[in-house]
Amino acid sequence: MVNLKTPKGTVDLNAQQTITMDEIAKRVERVYKIHGGLPITTPTFELREILTNKYGDDSKLIYNLEDQGGDICSLRYDLTVPFSRYLCTNRIQKMRRYQIANVFRRDNPSFKTGRLREFIQADFDICGTNLPMVNDAEILKMIYDILASFKLPYPFRIKINDRRILNSLLGLCQVPPELQQSTCSTIDKFGKLTLQEMNNEFIMKGLSEYSVENINELILKKRGNSQETIQFLRKLESEELQLALCEMSTLFSYLDAYDVSNVEIDLSLARGLDYYTGLIIEATYDGVDVGSVIGGGRYDDLCKGLSEGSLKVPCVGFSVGVTRVFSLFQLETIRFDVFVGSGFGLNLEDRMKLLKILWKLGLKTETFSGKRVNYADQIEYAKKNNFKLAIFTGDNEIKNNVYVIVDLQTMQKVEIEREGLESYLLPLFK
Amino acid sequence: MVNLKTPKGTVDLNAQQTITMDEIAKRVERVYKIHGGLPITTPTFELREILTNKYGDDSKLIYNLEDQGGDICSLRYDLTVPFSRYLCTNRIQKMRRYQIANVFRRDNPSFKTGRLREFIQADFDICGTNLPMVNDAEILKMIYDILASFKLPYPFRIKINDRRILNSLLGLCQVPPELQQSTCSTIDKFGKLTLQEMNNEFIMKGLSEYSVENINELILKKRGNSQETIQFLRKLESEELQLALCEMSTLFSYLDAYDVSNVEIDLSLARGLDYYTGLIIEATYDGVDVGSVIGGGRYDDLCKGLSEGSLKVPCVGFSVGVTRVFSLFQLETIRFDVFVGSGFGLNLEDRMKLLKILWKLGLKTETFSGKRVNYADQIEYAKKNNFKLAIFTGDNEIKNNVYVIVDLQTMQKVEIEREGLESYLLPLFK
Repeated sequence: MVNLKTPKGTVDLNAQQTITMDEIAKRVERVYKIHGGLPITTPTFELREILTNKYGDDSKLIYNLEDQGGDICSLRYDLTVPFSRYLCTNRIQKMRRYQIANVFRRDNPSFKTGRLREFIQADFDICGTNLPMVNDAEILKMIYDILASFKLPYPFRIKINDRRILNSLLGLCQVPPELQQSTCSTIDKFGKLTLQEMNNEFIMKGLSEYSVENINELILKKRGNSQETIQFLRKLESEELQLALCEMSTLFSYLDAYDVSNVEIDLSLARGLDYYTGLIIEATYDGVDVGSVIGGGRYDDLCKGLSEGSLKVPCVGFSVGVTRVFSLFQLETIRFDVFVGSGFGLNLEDRMKLLKILWKLGLKTETFSGKRVNYADQIEYAKKNNFKLAIFTGDNEIKNNVYVIVDLQTMQKVEIEREGLESYLLPLFK
Repeated sequence: MVNLKTPKGTVDLNAQQTITMDEIAKRVERVYKIHGGLPITTPTFELREILTNKYGDDSKLIYNLEDQGGDICSLRYDLTVPFSRYLCTNRIQKMRRYQIANVFRRDNPSFKTGRLREFIQADFDICGTNLPMVNDAEILKMIYDILASFKLPYPFRIKINDRRILNSLLGLCQVPPELQQSTCSTIDKFGKLTLQEMNNEFIMKGLSEYSVENINELILKKRGNSQETIQFLRKLESEELQLALCEMSTLFSYLDAYDVSNVEIDLSLARGLDYYTGLIIEATYDGVDVGSVIGGGRYDDLCKGLSEGSLKVPCVGFSVGVTRVFSLFQLETIRFDVFVGSGFGLNLEDRMKLLKILWKLGLKTETFSGKRVNYADQIEYAKKNNFKLAIFTGDNEIKNNVYVIVDLQTMQKVEIEREGLESYLLPLFK
């Protein structure tokens, strides 16, 4: 017996779910277009070597294609690395691009929280040289507008940090440079692991007790609002940190110009991916169990690494987890326009001529294609499926050159001359 | 050195190409919606066993995922088998569904003719019992409307045949039943192979000289229009053939009711896939080198096979080869609304406040995020990228509380009060 399920961690979406997912994508795309984003399409799979060493501990979650001869490929894990490859392939140094597409991760799936093995991301990235924090501020403005456009009944917050601040702090905690990336990977689990579990992982990864204590004190301790955090950081001695801090202040003044609130510094925000070099971003909804719905940051060296130094393109961008947001949305209702019914007789070809007219008007129209159904059942079907009108034709209607039109909301019935059909319908479907 | 190309047979689409592809999909989707189609989404990969023995000789073109533990999967080869699996999984017996998505085939790629290893198909299918040929006729009406909506400068033709007619003819040619499917596979190459090559393949597959001669005479010989073909077939003695022929006449009377011309019977049309059971369809453009742009047909037994007899759902549908049609389309031009420029001074935060207003109006707006660019270069950039207007702010404009607006078509320049910006712009962008 053939197993008729979808593969582990994947789902079918029915029509209501698909339409709702499209609606979310459309709202995001609207913001992307307004900000000058150009859509590109990259293949669903890439040469495997492009994807290696980009995703830290999570590289093991990459789906590989079987070696059937020819190129060795893997399914895309995100849209950021393929975008950087695209920039390198086409030697592009300045672009605003977006891509809304499915990505693949062999993760432990959880349907309720929207964590699947195939899911949709909507990415926007700005690449090209810029004055510090100008594009970064625009990215945060976009994130704010997108979350506002979802109109969900939960407050959202946008948390930011800077990899340069994080690395400086890890330096102050005497974490050796070669352990900093892997330490970030554990810090990224803040909130998922308990403090005790995190500390154990730090020790296991080779950090000293001194480092662990200081990470707890400097990084993991919550510090109220962003101003307090900045005040605290100002006192620490590290040139890199002070530079990043200075840019952070610039960022907040730009956010003021954009009227963007809801942005706060969180020193425990680390992001798991290897390629971030500056600002990192994560957006969440309070009081729901879906994790972060948007993630992003600055990755100035990804193209440089891919092109072995031949193309340097600073980039900043973010990704909306469309599938995660979906789990917070109410499903859309599906509506149709006209059900074509039959009175006395089957009169298939007469119904077809009517269908042809209605389709030409662009109306979502259907009839039944089997044996004769009685009037009550036709009405019931049309009401149940959210049709607005039913139009009946039958032996009598053909003889009298009329149609009978039933408004399925009010159940009012009118008879109209066939020639007058279009002018009767047009005002009803504007 | 990392190889920065896309995998063999796959391509990146730039923004113009992506927008054009979306436009084609949108036109197809409009027809699908009007005909009551509901969109569903199935995963990009399926359990491998679902896909086996569905695609005839071409099964070797299926992309497999590597066995990394867990389910054994393959990338979808088309959208029809996943749809049938969806019907079985959810025990659905009546539905009009569409799906526009990428499918994957390890075929020999040819970029010029739109034959790629990852390409987009737009499928529409009607499932459920129906009087003979009612849904089949609607499918042909939709194909006609879709091809018309493309407004391409090439005449199109819709060729049809019926697997039952084809099998009857093969029977009359004394092709044994067990060789009929494989014989269809060769007939499907008509036009791609020479007659001599086809005949050699028939012999190689084990057909007798008698069968081959008769296939040439009965099936491969072109027979003018559909009426002539029907006249010819009427004389042949085969019960199955006469039944199919009778339904074919019904089909043509429905097509008359729908005013659909351009449909002709072609006895050499076979379609390569195993699952067709009745009507088969192929649409082509004359005088272009892209092969068929739409294919489809009736497959009444696919669900029955998948569900091992527990669910019988007759289906008829078709697939638009969006990527193939794309190769015939002119690329769309990309346009933007407002370029925000700077006069004297950099005035970043003042530009940001202006951007905020314009984004709120839904205008596609950009500024430059780097060091000061001179006026002429800003204008040149905005014109080159199809912006409609440029709005400048600078030290003087801030002092005088005005903006300078340049119409990039006429190069006319006006100065307006800041408070009047919205009411000035709204009529320009309706």
